[in-house]
Amino acid sequence: MLDHLFSPRSVAVIGASKTPGKVGHDILANLISGGFTGSIIPVNSAGGTIFDRPVVERLQKYRGEIDQVIIAVPRKNVLDAVYDALTKKAKGIILISAGFKESGQEGKALEEKITQLCRDHNARLLGPNCLGLLNTRNNLNSSFAGSMPARGNIAVFSQSGALCTSMLDLAEERRLGLSKMISIGNKADINENDLLTYLAGDEDTKVVAGYLENIVSGEKFIKAAEAICSRKPVVLLKSGTTDAGQKAAASHTGVLAGTDTAYGAAFKRSGVIRADTFEALFDYATAFSMQPLPRGDRVLIITNAGGPGTMAADAVEHSGMKVAELASNTAAALRGRLPEEARFGNPVDVLGDAPPERYTEALRAAQKDDNVDAIIIILTPQVMAKPKETARAIARAIDGKKPVLASFMGGSKVLPGRSELTAAGLPNYESPERVVATLKVMYEYYTWLNKPPRMVTRFRVNRRRVERIITRSRRFNLLQLNEVKSKKILASYGFNVPDGSLVTNAEEAVEQARRTGFPVAMKIVSPDIVHKSDMGGVKLNLTTAQQVRDGFDLMMMRILQQVPSVVIEGIYVEKMVDPGLEVIIGVSRDPQFGPMLMFGLGGIFVEVMKDVTFHLAPITQDEAIQMLKSTRSYDILKGKRGQKGVDIVGIAKGLQRISQLTTDFPQIIELDINPFIVGETGTDPVVADGSMTLISADKQIII
Amino acid sequence: MLDHLFSPRSVAVIGASKTPGKVGHDILANLISGGFTGSIIPVNSAGGTIFDRPVVERLQKYRGEIDQVIIAVPRKNVLDAVYDALTKKAKGIILISAGFKESGQEGKALEEKITQLCRDHNARLLGPNCLGLLNTRNNLNSSFAGSMPARGNIAVFSQSGALCTSMLDLAEERRLGLSKMISIGNKADINENDLLTYLAGDEDTKVVAGYLENIVSGEKFIKAAEAICSRKPVVLLKSGTTDAGQKAAASHTGVLAGTDTAYGAAFKRSGVIRADTFEALFDYATAFSMQPLPRGDRVLIITNAGGPGTMAADAVEHSGMKVAELASNTAAALRGRLPEEARFGNPVDVLGDAPPERYTEALRAAQKDDNVDAIIIILTPQVMAKPKETARAIARAIDGKKPVLASFMGGSKVLPGRSELTAAGLPNYESPERVVATLKVMYEYYTWLNKPPRMVTRFRVNRRRVERIITRSRRFNLLQLNEVKSKKILASYGFNVPDGSLVTNAEEAVEQARRTGFPVAMKIVSPDIVHKSDMGGVKLNLTTAQQVRDGFDLMMMRILQQVPSVVIEGIYVEKMVDPGLEVIIGVSRDPQFGPMLMFGLGGIFVEVMKDVTFHLAPITQDEAIQMLKSTRSYDILKGKRGQKGVDIVGIAKGLQRISQLTTDFPQIIELDINPFIVGETGTDPVVADGSMTLISADKQIII
Repeated sequence: MLDHLFSPRSVAVIGASKTPGKVGHDILANLISGGFTGSIIPVNSAGGTIFDRPVVERLQKYRGEIDQVIIAVPRKNVLDAVYDALTKKAKGIILISAGFKESGQEGKALEEKITQLCRDHNARLLGPNCLGLLNTRNNLNSSFAGSMPARGNIAVFSQSGALCTSMLDLAEERRLGLSKMISIGNKADINENDLLTYLAGDEDTKVVAGYLENIVSGEKFIKAAEAICSRKPVVLLKSGTTDAGQKAAASHTGVLAGTDTAYGAAFKRSGVIRADTFEALFDYATAFSMQPLPRGDRVLIITNAGGPGTMAADAVEHSGMKVAELASNTAAALRGRLPEEARFGNPVDVLGDAPPERYTEALRAAQKDDNVDAIIIILTPQVMAKPKETARAIARAIDGKKPVLASFMGGSKVLPGRSELTAAGLPNYESPERVVATLKVMYEYYTWLNKPPRMVTRFRVNRRRVERIITRSRRFNLLQLNEVKSKKILASYGFNVPDGSLVTNAEEAVEQARRTGFPVAMKIVSPDIVHKSDMGGVKLNLTTAQQVRDGFDLMMMRILQQVPSVVIEGIYVEKMVDPGLEVIIGVSRDPQFGPMLMFGLGGIFVEVMKDVTFHLAPITQDEAIQMLKSTRSYDILKGKRGQKGVDIVGIAKGLQRISQLTTDFPQIIELDINPFIVGETGTDPVVADGSMTLISADKQIII
Repeated sequence: MLDHLFSPRSVAVIGASKTPGKVGHDILANLISGGFTGSIIPVNSAGGTIFDRPVVERLQKYRGEIDQVIIAVPRKNVLDAVYDALTKKAKGIILISAGFKESGQEGKALEEKITQLCRDHNARLLGPNCLGLLNTRNNLNSSFAGSMPARGNIAVFSQSGALCTSMLDLAEERRLGLSKMISIGNKADINENDLLTYLAGDEDTKVVAGYLENIVSGEKFIKAAEAICSRKPVVLLKSGTTDAGQKAAASHTGVLAGTDTAYGAAFKRSGVIRADTFEALFDYATAFSMQPLPRGDRVLIITNAGGPGTMAADAVEHSGMKVAELASNTAAALRGRLPEEARFGNPVDVLGDAPPERYTEALRAAQKDDNVDAIIIILTPQVMAKPKETARAIARAIDGKKPVLASFMGGSKVLPGRSELTAAGLPNYESPERVVATLKVMYEYYTWLNKPPRMVTRFRVNRRRVERIITRSRRFNLLQLNEVKSKKILASYGFNVPDGSLVTNAEEAVEQARRTGFPVAMKIVSPDIVHKSDMGGVKLNLTTAQQVRDGFDLMMMRILQQVPSVVIEGIYVEKMVDPGLEVIIGVSRDPQFGPMLMFGLGGIFVEVMKDVTFHLAPITQDEAIQMLKSTRSYDILKGKRGQKGVDIVGIAKGLQRISQLTTDFPQIIELDINPFIVGETGTDPVVADGSMTLISADKQIII
């Protein structure tokens, strides 16, 4: 699909220039010096020759076929250049020039026009405002980013051209080989989703490392990312993670769900490994590129020094992985082969004077030990240490079945060792802590790859009834659905909602109370009142007709005294819910990724401790249970100190139902069930209160 | 005090050897090649010459005076060597040899003997089992660690000799200058406290970076650390941060307080900056070595690329510091001097084609701007970028009043720029995130330096009464103090304890209830019952004499039914406490650092959320309030959603009182006040329940 861009037979450079330092010169120079063996056609109205090649004055005059056109001319000449390229039936266009969407309305309009033109002609467009791309397989350097990197299996891409230059420079210093480098610029046509799809099928690429500032479509991103991640790891650095300001939202879920939370949920869903720092991006990508995945979380440490060994063990425990316990025969075997002063636990301390053989003895034993899933090798440059020889010996001893990551700690003395490690496909890290952070994401990716298949349950529901309520509400622009309507909708989706009814006078209230049976609760229903209980608009546990009658009159009187102009729709009388544990489940629609589910324990846990977890809809039962488990307060659900636990599956089902509801009805942009009252295992949780916000009828629904 | 070690006029090496690779050879070689200008005396019974120097067969035969003796002989010969050194009145002994405390009982005994010998002769001993030390001021390399590092103002020390070699190697690679390097080994005599005290007065040292695995005395450490930190920053990496196993403890505080928590509290108290990774140790030390402290937390970012600028701004916000808002005249001035496409907010984007002058314009403006406390400079190696020239220009433009930290991102292309930065005293970091982490600790250290003076309040208390209770209890080995005794102790220290009394029959109970006034609470008092309410041993809110009478009989009957053999001391009848917010305050005695105070909100906050904070006693009121503020649940204390807050000063005073109590009585090893019931501002919190554990009479009290 992007073959004309990555594997062209011929490349034209419009704006090729004789003047060093000009972009059109540098690109041409890069193309030639990179060693591309296809045709290279410099184009410039001035004609003449550049690098002894004849310059074509206008692309049309060139007789041969053109696959790829690189445009590096001032903005005012870009449109002509695009026309020329399309007339020559070029299918890949790299638009280097800047001054488009990023610079204002005029540029934006031109960018859109060019994009449409390309689409009309079935040509793919990279950029504008980008550095171009590199493909090491065919020595294609269609960029002004720099020189051709070494061939390798890491594909890097970046939305920031500047960061592309840092990435290339860093890869060179760390001697990492790349398969591709793509600067995606303004993403007018080709964006991260196209790239992920292309790179999924690219045999030269084993791991993708990218930098993003935004994404163009949440849904497409998740599909593309999930597809590629099931074949190879993708590590992404996403900036802009702090929310600029507080959002105005009507629900708890809405307040707590930020843009960054949504990205986190989307990455997690689709298997993308998130890097929090520029260094981590390369730390992770390097290990994925070079080493197999760990099949478990039990880590063995081999070291020539106690201190750094302890540092590594600390880091392993902090990360949530395990310090492996060696099998007894492994320890016994080591005892025979290492000096008696060595330590045979974990860390295995091969001592400060360790020659390479001690490292390899320990390594071989660890590779054979079924209790070990991953191996960390630490070396400090003590007088007797031989970093280079040790690295070589380790490289020879490796069987490639478990990941082996090294930290040769120091500077110039360990450098020869590090180079040997890199050459042998063994990643090296400056500190044990960075090794561990890397192993951790490798293990997480392994876990993601081996997760059970996702089976989203579809419950039988009354969809038409919900359709009617929503349509009618939006028609009258009633976007904030009250408790009564929200509960009707939830009941239609199979929620256990207490029997109740809206009444408008005391006698109706009594009648309704008798119908449902005592005790009952009464709640004011008014579009003007959000915090009902603060206004005296809630009465609970009314046990007699008289209490209901008195309650009705008192509530009406007091509220009208406080806010005489309030609109009151009536009072909702419902059967009291049996007490239980109060939790909150909710949904907030992210503009990019759609419905994002939230779970948290009620009250202070959500409001003060912000102990909540998020997940993108649609959700499976496993994932819903995982949401509960990843709150800090999970112990309360399980039951503590002899107390019985609550119905965890019931909460999970609740999450699954609101997942289905908000997937079916994108018109619902916020939803809170608060509290959702959960009883012992085997009982059905009850919706004690609920509210929803709809998108207004004049806004388009984002799906 | 350690002058004979760091500034000797003459150094003898016992065990000097002709054979390269032997420790005694390498040390001598290092001493000579390091450039030490004092006398160097090789000692070896074989005699002859080494490096053309005559070898003394036995130290006694040498006529001159000896300040420092380095001993590098097999363990069996160490004692003789030490005798020789002491006979020659050497005042500084560096014992390189291993095989002492770290290798078992025999070694330990020998180590103790040697240490005592040195003390008796007023000689100071470094080691054993160490690499020695380096002093760049007098070119003294009394080590086999490696070659002499560049002169500079960072002193490094390490409990792990291996890590010393990594430190030296890394310092060399990063071109950091050192003042001293000390390998402290087994710390038989000279330990971290001696070093901190010495380095505090060392004019060559501006910052100390050290690695520790344990400390020898908590109290001395805090004193020494506090003293040096008030003059210069100390950065420490402490390994062994995960607790091996769960401790058995009788109190909440005891369960929650781990060794690592105690180290954290001790470091915080004494101003020590804690590094969590090996890299951070040097990242921080470098910045402290080169740059002034920020006087506030408002950070300005100057960048030639948007993406990395955003990454830096994200990191600043995540760290809790602030992205500075430029003063309006600064922005205006920049507008005149930078191209119009540049961004004049924060980050200031000087654009991808920025020549050095744009960086310096922005830098000068930021240095003048009173809204800016610290400056981050980011450079990506885009085609037009000039890393080297930019670094030079920045170095010239710096006025040294605010910290300026750089991140030249990439590899070989930015390397010349990095070297220029380092040479000019500008720290460079591989990623914006590491810059921000470093700025953050600089700001924290600035805050610590400028904290108000610590004034520990001494309350008037009845110390003798407590003395009596504790002495009597320990005499009978009653180490777990019950509620009655605990409350008596707490009342003696000024706590508000409800009026109550221990009764042994129903009529006494009624009488006591009448005396205090209804309603009352009744609680079983038994050394065999820990969870009173689980056994039916608690009755609350009894409002009549009949309820009290019935309550007494029922409680006795039921408990004896459940555990017929239980020892019951009686039932405690006390006045019901008015309801309020339940918090826990407590103390757990750390073996190293003494009483460690804990605060947390009651119930689930402590048990499930572990939302607690710790502080070492003695505590000031400011510090106690800070403890409350640093819990996640602080909002509940302040009052939420129109609810009134509680008496925060009352809780602080409670913490101060238990601080005084456990400082006065080291016999108390655990103390819980749970719950401590707090009312509105202006009320006095009440001890609703309390317990204490004493150290047994046959154990020595650690002070």
